[in-house]
Amino acid sequence: MSSSYKNAISPTRAEDYSQWYQEVVKMADLAESSPIRGCMIIKPWGYAIWENIQKELDKKIKETGHQNFYFPMFIPLSYMAKEAEHIDGFAKECAVVTHHRLEVDSQNKLVPSGKLEEPLVIRPTSEVVIGEAFARWVNSYRDLPILGNQWANIVRWEMRPRIFLRTSEFLWQEGHTVHATAAEAIEETNKMLDVYKTFVEEFLAMSVIVGEKTRGERFPGAENTYCIEAMMQDKKALQAGTSHFLGQTFSKAFKIKFLSSAGKEEFAWTTSWGVSTRLIGGLIMSHSDDDGLVLPPKISPLHVVIIPIIHDAQQSSNIMQYCESIALELKASKFCNEPIKVLIDTSMKSTGNKIWSWIKKGVPIRIEIGEREMMSKNVCVARRDHIPSSKAVSSKAEFIQKAEKILSEIQSGMLHKTQKFIDSNIVTVNSRSDFLDILNNEKHDIGFLRAFWKEDEEIEKMLKEKYHITPRCIPLIDKDKRGRCIFNGTEDGILTVFGKAY
Amino acid sequence: MSSSYKNAISPTRAEDYSQWYQEVVKMADLAESSPIRGCMIIKPWGYAIWENIQKELDKKIKETGHQNFYFPMFIPLSYMAKEAEHIDGFAKECAVVTHHRLEVDSQNKLVPSGKLEEPLVIRPTSEVVIGEAFARWVNSYRDLPILGNQWANIVRWEMRPRIFLRTSEFLWQEGHTVHATAAEAIEETNKMLDVYKTFVEEFLAMSVIVGEKTRGERFPGAENTYCIEAMMQDKKALQAGTSHFLGQTFSKAFKIKFLSSAGKEEFAWTTSWGVSTRLIGGLIMSHSDDDGLVLPPKISPLHVVIIPIIHDAQQSSNIMQYCESIALELKASKFCNEPIKVLIDTSMKSTGNKIWSWIKKGVPIRIEIGEREMMSKNVCVARRDHIPSSKAVSSKAEFIQKAEKILSEIQSGMLHKTQKFIDSNIVTVNSRSDFLDILNNEKHDIGFLRAFWKEDEEIEKMLKEKYHITPRCIPLIDKDKRGRCIFNGTEDGILTVFGKAY
Repeated sequence: MSSSYKNAISPTRAEDYSQWYQEVVKMADLAESSPIRGCMIIKPWGYAIWENIQKELDKKIKETGHQNFYFPMFIPLSYMAKEAEHIDGFAKECAVVTHHRLEVDSQNKLVPSGKLEEPLVIRPTSEVVIGEAFARWVNSYRDLPILGNQWANIVRWEMRPRIFLRTSEFLWQEGHTVHATAAEAIEETNKMLDVYKTFVEEFLAMSVIVGEKTRGERFPGAENTYCIEAMMQDKKALQAGTSHFLGQTFSKAFKIKFLSSAGKEEFAWTTSWGVSTRLIGGLIMSHSDDDGLVLPPKISPLHVVIIPIIHDAQQSSNIMQYCESIALELKASKFCNEPIKVLIDTSMKSTGNKIWSWIKKGVPIRIEIGEREMMSKNVCVARRDHIPSSKAVSSKAEFIQKAEKILSEIQSGMLHKTQKFIDSNIVTVNSRSDFLDILNNEKHDIGFLRAFWKEDEEIEKMLKEKYHITPRCIPLIDKDKRGRCIFNGTEDGILTVFGKAY
Repeated sequence: MSSSYKNAISPTRAEDYSQWYQEVVKMADLAESSPIRGCMIIKPWGYAIWENIQKELDKKIKETGHQNFYFPMFIPLSYMAKEAEHIDGFAKECAVVTHHRLEVDSQNKLVPSGKLEEPLVIRPTSEVVIGEAFARWVNSYRDLPILGNQWANIVRWEMRPRIFLRTSEFLWQEGHTVHATAAEAIEETNKMLDVYKTFVEEFLAMSVIVGEKTRGERFPGAENTYCIEAMMQDKKALQAGTSHFLGQTFSKAFKIKFLSSAGKEEFAWTTSWGVSTRLIGGLIMSHSDDDGLVLPPKISPLHVVIIPIIHDAQQSSNIMQYCESIALELKASKFCNEPIKVLIDTSMKSTGNKIWSWIKKGVPIRIEIGEREMMSKNVCVARRDHIPSSKAVSSKAEFIQKAEKILSEIQSGMLHKTQKFIDSNIVTVNSRSDFLDILNNEKHDIGFLRAFWKEDEEIEKMLKEKYHITPRCIPLIDKDKRGRCIFNGTEDGILTVFGKAY
């Protein structure tokens, strides 16, 4: 790229990664902060990405035997109090409804009135409200398993909001299941973790580490929390999805009991698992460049945008006709068994503005059609995963024939890139001094550190407070390996990945 | 039907319509009341119907040029106060968030803490929170129109909740659009009203009257409200969808202004329109019978259920194989351009329980397969729109070939039935005395009364208080007709439909 080239996003990643992220979101018109503290407005381009995530993940959730349901967003305060660890984990971020009407007071001011007998918490997650129903629904082993899921909004009051990554209200899906045995519940937990890994890699083109959380990072009330962790371009970790084996915690708190086939009354075993609009934040930070968003074709609301370039008004209708013929043929072609999604940009913007707006929105393929292309039955093609100035001319027929292949190439190339990135930014560390040296000589971006470690609250606290680093997970692939803990020297250290986290 | 026949739903419609409705909901396992007052749990069978409504309606919303977005569910109290009529309309049913955390007080009790500076109302509808954003988004006529929609949960605190029909929290879609001229906004209002009519008739098989609301029944803040009104089997009206021309009410309250092409600053014109999970209540009350739910095939989660009837364990695998071959061929057939949705009921229930559970769930076609059917390559077919004892045997091949046609027949038959029902239960009344005679001699089910009427608050109030009857709408088809008002005798009465409403 020539030195005179000016990127569309300012600042660039190198200049200010955090500000770059905000600008990418803004320039792609994905979302904006609302005047309601910590809450975002998801704009059409951002919401269309969420709809695609929903569509594809929902398919996988249903294919694995789950059914969707919908529970009230209100949780009576007394339910929250039933599970001590759970309430400890969420108490600091609960929005609470205390009144059910408004009235004008004596100073002519609008104020809440109609105080509720029992305050209602807006769900920060739904284990307790769903647990109460499960207790009513489950009587016999014949009622099990219950495999449910809901797509919903939830609220976790956020003091330091960050668009898509941490917002007070966000959208997510939460799966909730009940099983007769611990083994079945553990199998379910793992199955859904695998669904998340497959989905995120296949559709979002984000390579992830699949692991188990350490005790201190578990979901409040879980016996075990599993996660997929991705690495952003600043080498920080993003937890992209979690799957919890809840043991009998919520069964005991809510009396989810059943008569076993042997006629014995037993407590059931439950799981829960979720991903949220946070995935969009991860998508942005995994792939985008200094010209804006880069979307994996499988999740992009559009595959191809066609930009008519009209200098001579007399040629306008001929060029438009040619563009429409390309669009028509593309729509008759398939990518992932569905028609290729095409748009002809007929807006009143200038050609330059059109081109840059679609670059910033991350559309995988851009086609520019002027008089020359029309006359020669060619297309001028630019791929979003190449630099903006790189365009290739090919015949229309050849391009139509190759379109699916190009989209597949872009998709797999993006995944491959994140795989390489994560692989080349994990350092295995063999001693405490090496570990601390790296942290003390820290540049902005240390990546992930992998070391044998025996869980220890004190060490964890020190690492977090002094270096802002936390154990991200114990990769499942290395789960059975044991080695000398770099901190306390015992031989039962477990290979653990540490990093800074979003 | 023989006199010894016992219906699956008790009480029947004739015995107690309102209790019958609750039982149908329960027996079909659609939803249940939750312990949170006024809120319901939508169970998988009910939610699958909602998903189908979403899928089909969303398609129509997008085909008419709208894009989905998502706004925060919280509305600052000060926004609510900006439009007087709007707040008057909703003040009595607003859930209010006043705190953002929980803490344990000195008596060891969990209590709300972290009082918000400004209370937040949970959206009862989103005109004001979206209006604030529209004011920021709209600057020039080039920014218009904005055509948006969101699928969301909303809260209107309900003192007399009724499952699906009136719940404190419910799910809906709300469209919100901004236009440069009144004419365009009115065109949009009408277009979406027509989308609702088409959708409800085509998919839910519910015939509706398309009309304009009288002044007293308008949406708070609207210049004009249009609606589709359906008639339930107890002859009461159910408002199934509304489309509002909001004029400049919200533009002026939120300063949604734009520079016109002539360079003049003008206030924009807005619309909003919505349908909700209430549609499921309408669907139930339109079609169900004394044996439970009856679902129109186009909205049913399942088209065909196959029930293997196994008396002789030795034949079990042969019968199952035969069932699977039927399912496979059905899935390869299409209804409305999509594969026919089939399930083989392999649950551990008795045959009788299986049959009745699917009758109560309203599945359009039930097939029973025993040894006799398997041996003769036949199927025993029961249609949900016929009486339960009516079954027809046909060859498998013939049934597969006819399946789409049967489903289409069921669908159109259901619509036709509601059309006939509504037509035969509207009485045109020509004088005040006739009108009041009918109301005074009222049996449980009066149906709709149609009369020329000039809007009059006093009359409206009297009718509502004394007879629980309200003007449902001014049918658009008769909108230009004028006649002698049956109450005040002037000649500018408008043909208005009155009825009792849900």
